[in-house]
Amino acid sequence: MTTPINLFEYESIAPQHLSQMALDYYASGAWDEVTLKDNRTSYEHFKLRPRMLVDVSDRDLSTQILGQSLSMPILIAPMAFQCLAHPEGELATAKAAAQLGTAMVLSTMSTKSLEEVALTSKNCQQESFRNQGGIGEKSLVSHPLWFQLYVHRERALTRTLIERAEAAGFTALCLTVDAPVLGRRERDSRNQFTLPPGMELANLATMADLEIPKTAGESGLFTYFAQQLDPGLTWKDLEWLQSLTTLPVVVKGILRGDDALRAVESGAKAVIVSNHGGRQLDGAIATIEALAEIVAAVGDQAEVLVDGGIRRGTDVLKALALGAKAVLVGRPILWGLAVGGSVGAQHILELLRDELGVAMALSGCAKIEDIDDSLVIRL
Amino acid sequence: MTTPINLFEYESIAPQHLSQMALDYYASGAWDEVTLKDNRTSYEHFKLRPRMLVDVSDRDLSTQILGQSLSMPILIAPMAFQCLAHPEGELATAKAAAQLGTAMVLSTMSTKSLEEVALTSKNCQQESFRNQGGIGEKSLVSHPLWFQLYVHRERALTRTLIERAEAAGFTALCLTVDAPVLGRRERDSRNQFTLPPGMELANLATMADLEIPKTAGESGLFTYFAQQLDPGLTWKDLEWLQSLTTLPVVVKGILRGDDALRAVESGAKAVIVSNHGGRQLDGAIATIEALAEIVAAVGDQAEVLVDGGIRRGTDVLKALALGAKAVLVGRPILWGLAVGGSVGAQHILELLRDELGVAMALSGCAKIEDIDDSLVIRL
Amino acid sequence: MTTPINLFEYESIAPQHLSQMALDYYASGAWDEVTLKDNRTSYEHFKLRPRMLVDVSDRDLSTQILGQSLSMPILIAPMAFQCLAHPEGELATAKAAAQLGTAMVLSTMSTKSLEEVALTSKNCQQESFRNQGGIGEKSLVSHPLWFQLYVHRERALTRTLIERAEAAGFTALCLTVDAPVLGRRERDSRNQFTLPPGMELANLATMADLEIPKTAGESGLFTYFAQQLDPGLTWKDLEWLQSLTTLPVVVKGILRGDDALRAVESGAKAVIVSNHGGRQLDGAIATIEALAEIVAAVGDQAEVLVDGGIRRGTDVLKALALGAKAVLVGRPILWGLAVGGSVGAQHILELLRDELGVAMALSGCAKIEDIDDSLVIRL
Amino acid sequence: MTTPINLFEYESIAPQHLSQMALDYYASGAWDEVTLKDNRTSYEHFKLRPRMLVDVSDRDLSTQILGQSLSMPILIAPMAFQCLAHPEGELATAKAAAQLGTAMVLSTMSTKSLEEVALTSKNCQQESFRNQGGIGEKSLVSHPLWFQLYVHRERALTRTLIERAEAAGFTALCLTVDAPVLGRRERDSRNQFTLPPGMELANLATMADLEIPKTAGESGLFTYFAQQLDPGLTWKDLEWLQSLTTLPVVVKGILRGDDALRAVESGAKAVIVSNHGGRQLDGAIATIEALAEIVAAVGDQAEVLVDGGIRRGTDVLKALALGAKAVLVGRPILWGLAVGGSVGAQHILELLRDELGVAMALSGCAKIEDIDDSLVIRL
Repeated sequence: MTTPINLFEYESIAPQHLSQMALDYYASGAWDEVTLKDNRTSYEHFKLRPRMLVDVSDRDLSTQILGQSLSMPILIAPMAFQCLAHPEGELATAKAAAQLGTAMVLSTMSTKSLEEVALTSKNCQQESFRNQGGIGEKSLVSHPLWFQLYVHRERALTRTLIERAEAAGFTALCLTVDAPVLGRRERDSRNQFTLPPGMELANLATMADLEIPKTAGESGLFTYFAQQLDPGLTWKDLEWLQSLTTLPVVVKGILRGDDALRAVESGAKAVIVSNHGGRQLDGAIATIEALAEIVAAVGDQAEVLVDGGIRRGTDVLKALALGAKAVLVGRPILWGLAVGGSVGAQHILELLRDELGVAMALSGCAKIEDIDDSLVIRL
Repeated sequence: MTTPINLFEYESIAPQHLSQMALDYYASGAWDEVTLKDNRTSYEHFKLRPRMLVDVSDRDLSTQILGQSLSMPILIAPMAFQCLAHPEGELATAKAAAQLGTAMVLSTMSTKSLEEVALTSKNCQQESFRNQGGIGEKSLVSHPLWFQLYVHRERALTRTLIERAEAAGFTALCLTVDAPVLGRRERDSRNQFTLPPGMELANLATMADLEIPKTAGESGLFTYFAQQLDPGLTWKDLEWLQSLTTLPVVVKGILRGDDALRAVESGAKAVIVSNHGGRQLDGAIATIEALAEIVAAVGDQAEVLVDGGIRRGTDVLKALALGAKAVLVGRPILWGLAVGGSVGAQHILELLRDELGVAMALSGCAKIEDIDDSLVIRL
Repeated sequence: MTTPINLFEYESIAPQHLSQMALDYYASGAWDEVTLKDNRTSYEHFKLRPRMLVDVSDRDLSTQILGQSLSMPILIAPMAFQCLAHPEGELATAKAAAQLGTAMVLSTMSTKSLEEVALTSKNCQQESFRNQGGIGEKSLVSHPLWFQLYVHRERALTRTLIERAEAAGFTALCLTVDAPVLGRRERDSRNQFTLPPGMELANLATMADLEIPKTAGESGLFTYFAQQLDPGLTWKDLEWLQSLTTLPVVVKGILRGDDALRAVESGAKAVIVSNHGGRQLDGAIATIEALAEIVAAVGDQAEVLVDGGIRRGTDVLKALALGAKAVLVGRPILWGLAVGGSVGAQHILELLRDELGVAMALSGCAKIEDIDDSLVIRL
Repeated sequence: MTTPINLFEYESIAPQHLSQMALDYYASGAWDEVTLKDNRTSYEHFKLRPRMLVDVSDRDLSTQILGQSLSMPILIAPMAFQCLAHPEGELATAKAAAQLGTAMVLSTMSTKSLEEVALTSKNCQQESFRNQGGIGEKSLVSHPLWFQLYVHRERALTRTLIERAEAAGFTALCLTVDAPVLGRRERDSRNQFTLPPGMELANLATMADLEIPKTAGESGLFTYFAQQLDPGLTWKDLEWLQSLTTLPVVVKGILRGDDALRAVESGAKAVIVSNHGGRQLDGAIATIEALAEIVAAVGDQAEVLVDGGIRRGTDVLKALALGAKAVLVGRPILWGLAVGGSVGAQHILELLRDELGVAMALSGCAKIEDIDDSLVIRL
């Protein structure tokens, strides 16, 4: 078999490496999957207007998010249950992120504990530091590892998770706000989705004896959310959360300018424009369509990131031209994991990075800051 | 066989339980069925802009229409000949509505008499009252049962129907205004549609010896309308109608702001934005596209409802965001009836209700009044 | 075989009754047939906004075009070579028009002479007059028969044709202005289209010994146009033409407001918005899209008609709502001819008339003048 | 086999005459080939508004570009490696251009040397001059042959190429500015594209011993560009280039008004609106969509040409109506070459010319200057 040369090829090969239940869980969107499709197809409405005869001999894709250095404006989105894709699960993903010098956002619902992930990430970075014949502490690459938070009804759990994440060296908290209840993914209902034997909620199992139930005619995750997670979360809780930590807080799941502004006013350092990969409210606006309004509302008070439907370097370029500081990639990382573990996930990131590099060169952008909003037009 | 988990599954199973003539009668639209398709696809042009971090722990879907309490803003649209779908016909539908605490609009062209339907509805409500250990008359759930009117050339018929509906306890009259002649549904022409032996116009047969004829090369219903119904109905007749009753009158079949205003000025308490499920004037505007203009024209002088193409809770949410007080659902109730009688019809309503509940939670709406027009954008 | 119930069914049956060469000649459009398709699909962009509760008991579809009474606002467009569809050719079409009380526009390129057609039309009208027990000359239905003109390089031909048409009792001249050269219909090129043995240019063969040649790798009609017709025709010639006749002149083939105005200023009494059924300039604007501009430019100085893609009564309604006084129908008449001769062509007109009647009733229009531009909206 | 009658037929036949590697190289676009498709489909958004009753008896398609006379506003775009299509390669193309009296733009990456091409072109023109019984030097048709430039890192190469082109009698230099790196054409990556044995970079091989490498898992041309071509080219270099030559310089690959203006301010005599046939930045705006902005920006300071997706005479007409002075055609020439060598390429040009002639006649344009922007509307 030849190595896939783009993310779509990974997507088409991945099913061979996944159980039907895992594939459905990863691939599906809510209800009719309209938003799932919109996230992708909406990118085609935005056309690039490249600039010519700019010197692009030296290209630099590095950027700073929350003051943390990244080798490129592409992060790994939080995704639950990565051991469904590969035995190493979130550890493999963390290695890929560390190898490439970008950030991984670890899900509360991970199948490897946050401490293991943090350790793997740190070891991997030190190794790559040694391999490069590192000289001093200062030249050590940064350690960008964010922890994604679902707030359980039992608030003590959340408090402890934050303490653990901080202790383990995570550098940001990412609060998901678009899931007061779980979106209905009908493939999961039909499959009565649950975790297979031997897989657990690694951050929660030992701490609170929580597990994904097996529910008749329903996704076990849907039931879990209904029972355990707090549908009463408000902006006040965002302030409460910040009182618990010195880490910067990122709010994920914003689709309106007014909500983005409110997040910033409540102390968020960044917002992620997201519809949860089309898995929560079907019919919600595609993220690339919502982005410009949110960028305009937030101004320079916070950083705006976006996820959903990004499969090509040109998608990243469009998102950045519309004002995003960076993007997050989700499902393709899972396809990479399924096909080749850590190496596969890393290849996904490399492909996107290289495509972005070429796209920037062809648009007259030598560095990230050269990307401006005149590069895109909606037709 | 597993229980269907959404309205589309009911639609795909229903044909196994229906004669071709009944299926065609229910499923078809006028002429090229463009409006039939538009009613559905137009919902995709409207994208949701959900609001986050609102406390949605306690969700309340109840509402008031015409001052009548409903458990949810979803009514059952008037549909003729429900015994074609199930032997219990309109009685089964009435049970479903009563069980769920919402309103059914009974068609003039029903195959069970309005008196039987009213009795069934009342009994069913009392039973569910008793089952809940009811204490006093006051806590009895409301009895929302509307009667849909086609005005026959013979006006005495109409007068008597109104008297009978009022006597039987119906709580509103719903005048259909979009059928001065019947729309051409070509499948019915080809089938030479008529009622099978043993089925009759239960409200009219005994009273006026009327029946659906069998017509060569034409739908018998088309012939019936041409012969019996009054194509000369005007706004004056709406006033005449109101002089006959103390019941509130709802005008069904409005697609323009000026007509809606005229209905209100003529005394209508509510208008239903409807193109008769795409069965009358093919090429007519989709109801969700017409809704905003009508809401703007009517203001707070009357209530606006809408039907046509609603298959998901998110459709209901969009309609309410555009200003509808409630929606009516038609064909899916028939698919439910066909598949499972009263239980099937009830399941249809439950599915929609639950989807609406999830959609509201995911949009930051704890109650119906929280739904505002900033929730949708037309892209 | 059952009788077709709409124009599309005629279209699907017609090929069984036609040679491939004839079918291709009739069905094809120029080059990639984009305009051919646009003519049809553009009607779907216009949505109807029907008006309710108007008394439509008495419906009247009659209208006046050029002061000539027609039973309905639907004329038969000029089409060449109708004997390819049926042995009676243009005579059968004339009968259908006369039976229905509407106008036929006879092509210069007819396979029956204009005199025969005029005679057939007159006889048919007298017969239907007698059948109705006619009393006096005055109640005789009008005799609307228009003659379509292609101007040959040899101008004497045109002069004689006009004299013959006038003598035969034609009531208008219809000058086709969109064919300085013939559009490329590639199916005709491949077929090396020509008339079969025994069929001739009935108006021209005896008069000028003209015939459609057989050309290698090319449509014979294309060659005929290049050799015989005058590509140098200008607005001056329109004035010259009018100096030759007392008949009103209609200009057919206008797609721009300024051209329409110029036609009127040059004396035209009516213009026909037409792209020649998509057979001339492929990529030209669909007629229904061009109509409003032309109506606005012309105002009440002349009448505006439109052809192209009309297959349903609702299409006629839309065209009239956009300001057309009447429409012309082309290909469907040929499908009717092919399937059933004069009776088939007549049925086509009846179907359209009945559909228009129902569409008007459902839109609150009792008569043609009730149709206004608020009935359509472009979405 | 019958002679193809339009460009699409050539496209469908050509694969029979090409290796898979050559076909893929010619046919493919970058990444997902969105821009490749957009270039073509965007023409359908622009509708023609033809003008009637203009005298089009004498049609003249000739025009002047850069003061050089062309028989029609259709040039041959620069394309690499034409020997992949036919053994005579660029020589055959030059003959076709000369026969038809239009300009060919020869690629730097040609498989026949610029000197051979120039000689072939000159001989061919003299021959056609003699065949026409030419009398004096003055009536000799012009010799429009442009040389397309890729600037290598080794600037001496460029300097020498310019000197050689000037010496050989080329009449313009065409600087490609949209290729600081090569676009990713994934079919070429999969094929590990390289030139077959016996084919070489005819302009560069002897001069600098350069060749297209064979690269594992990658297009050899991609590698060549990365290694040899200068990604550091800026507007300053455009001025430097002009200091080396008296030939007019044309800038090819502009998609924005500001870039076009900058090209003109830097001395360019013409700009070509181009996205490299969709082969560089996928997602870039279709050229016909970008054209009007660039025409408006440049005004009468320079000439604007356009390429991409032109397959019909009506496409040429639309481009000219939107302000282009001429168009360039690429791939169809290759299909012509593949099918029939020089004769095939010439037939492609003849088909387009004849279609343009008919389209102009049908639009009321006797000569190129009659084409104005009122002829198109975007719907």
